[in-house]
Amino acid sequence: MDKQTVLVGVDIGGTNTEVGFVDESGNVVKSTSFATNAHDVAQKFLHKLKSTIDEECARLSDRYVCRGIGIAAPNVNYLNGTIEAPANLNWGTVNLVEILGDDYEQPIRIINDANAAALGEMGFGLAQDMKNFIVITLGTGLGSGIVINGEILHGSSGMAGELGHTTVVVDGRQCGCGKTGCLEAYVSANGIRRTTIELMSQMPYDGVLATVSFDKLTAKMVSDAAHKADPLALAVLERTGSILGRKLADVVACLDPEAFILMGGVVNTGELLLEPIRRHFECHLLPVFRGKVAMLSSEMPAGRPAILGATMLLK
Amino acid sequence: MDKQTVLVGVDIGGTNTEVGFVDESGNVVKSTSFATNAHDVAQKFLHKLKSTIDEECARLSDRYVCRGIGIAAPNVNYLNGTIEAPANLNWGTVNLVEILGDDYEQPIRIINDANAAALGEMGFGLAQDMKNFIVITLGTGLGSGIVINGEILHGSSGMAGELGHTTVVVDGRQCGCGKTGCLEAYVSANGIRRTTIELMSQMPYDGVLATVSFDKLTAKMVSDAAHKADPLALAVLERTGSILGRKLADVVACLDPEAFILMGGVVNTGELLLEPIRRHFECHLLPVFRGKVAMLSSEMPAGRPAILGATMLLK
Repeated sequence: MDKQTVLVGVDIGGTNTEVGFVDESGNVVKSTSFATNAHDVAQKFLHKLKSTIDEECARLSDRYVCRGIGIAAPNVNYLNGTIEAPANLNWGTVNLVEILGDDYEQPIRIINDANAAALGEMGFGLAQDMKNFIVITLGTGLGSGIVINGEILHGSSGMAGELGHTTVVVDGRQCGCGKTGCLEAYVSANGIRRTTIELMSQMPYDGVLATVSFDKLTAKMVSDAAHKADPLALAVLERTGSILGRKLADVVACLDPEAFILMGGVVNTGELLLEPIRRHFECHLLPVFRGKVAMLSSEMPAGRPAILGATMLLK
Repeated sequence: MDKQTVLVGVDIGGTNTEVGFVDESGNVVKSTSFATNAHDVAQKFLHKLKSTIDEECARLSDRYVCRGIGIAAPNVNYLNGTIEAPANLNWGTVNLVEILGDDYEQPIRIINDANAAALGEMGFGLAQDMKNFIVITLGTGLGSGIVINGEILHGSSGMAGELGHTTVVVDGRQCGCGKTGCLEAYVSANGIRRTTIELMSQMPYDGVLATVSFDKLTAKMVSDAAHKADPLALAVLERTGSILGRKLADVVACLDPEAFILMGGVVNTGELLLEPIRRHFECHLLPVFRGKVAMLSSEMPAGRPAILGATMLLK
């Protein structure tokens, strides 16, 4: 029997790295993941990534042959293929394509994770009929992939789409990027943790989140508490939705997209987060845009759009 | 002798409307202007515009024949040709092309003023070799024209590029657009007037600007006072530069342009305004962008880029 071709799609997140093996119809025939471990240096991460790919390729080798590797990662410069000092990883600037290229003969491509997700949504998801839309990834950090006239916006130096590092609070929280008051410092899994303890300091509260130390606190715990009507957790989601909704209204004034597609672990919170996002978004839009811009959440499993989009670079 | 062709370029500003007659090489062979009078209804303005065009065309008729009219105006929807409830004019939504079309047989085109200015800079100004840049017009209001891969960004509904109506102060000043805290409410001729009296309320001051009532106060007076080292006026320009510099740094994170081109009456203040803009811009950029994005001021006379750009629509 002839072996089928698969492409390896890798989505490097601040917390987990997802690896998927994608056949020619866009089906993920196998997927796995490992902890990214943000404190590791890049070499250690690469060693883990290679062993994961090699082991899975070996397991699949009776039916499939791997024909290329597409990587979605934070802070990728599309023009030169480097990952430039990602805020949530202790890597500095590295050229993954060059380093992995020494070990693989197959083509290797790299793209910003949110841009990969936008490609994935255009190819297989909610954006199949859209020409102007923006993907917002809400994970450990906040990424954005901007599509204009059906093309990913790369910008003049290959670094466009860093909405996570635009200001929402002047002289606000320290962000991992070196600036202050960035959207990502408020709206992301980490931002939700920080908002939780900020609001806890400001309101009378003796609920479940008061029993967890900051280093153990997760956005998932806040989400779970909100689903049990915990007042602090609900206030955190309201604040988070307010900040994101207002910022995305500003993005509409600038770019006039037809839709936003939200995705990532934080979006699993569901309507308790989406409702305040939509409400604040709509009421801060310029009047000419009201009621015209869709605020969607991706219908694919977490990581899937980026994995599919990364492999689309190899076609 | 054969008559030469000219195109009429009109730049409708919140304070003045400039009309230029442009030959085929982009030379403005004749120009004139009249007060826009923001409180007038659109019909009254149109009457004045038509009589101005007709009188000048008649005067030029021994040597030139007018072949079309290009109009640059605020809040233009490029896709349907309407001006949509401009914040600085008492017009509601009007379709100038349709109304003027009843009186002229020549082609009539309309485009957002800042987009027209961006076209003018691409055709004849500082952006002749640029593919990704942004024009910021600082007049009565604040307009922006965004160029991506050599094309004006219109967006999914024809209304992209309204940077003047993105937030700089949450729950801040009332803006003419109906929202609060917009960039335009702080950084524009009107914004500078408002900042002047705000800061006057907050610092000990008995200089020249204290002798002028708000209705008589102009951005030009503030500029003149700053050039005489008036401490309030200098504080106003510092504040204005800080707000615009920070916002444009955010725009870089989103769009990654190679340059901004500033223009409009407010820019005539020169280095006393440009220096704080550049300083705050540079220090609020994401590290990967520092030192890479030019902050230029247009080298053409006020209104000229928009007039030239508006006529380029007719070619």
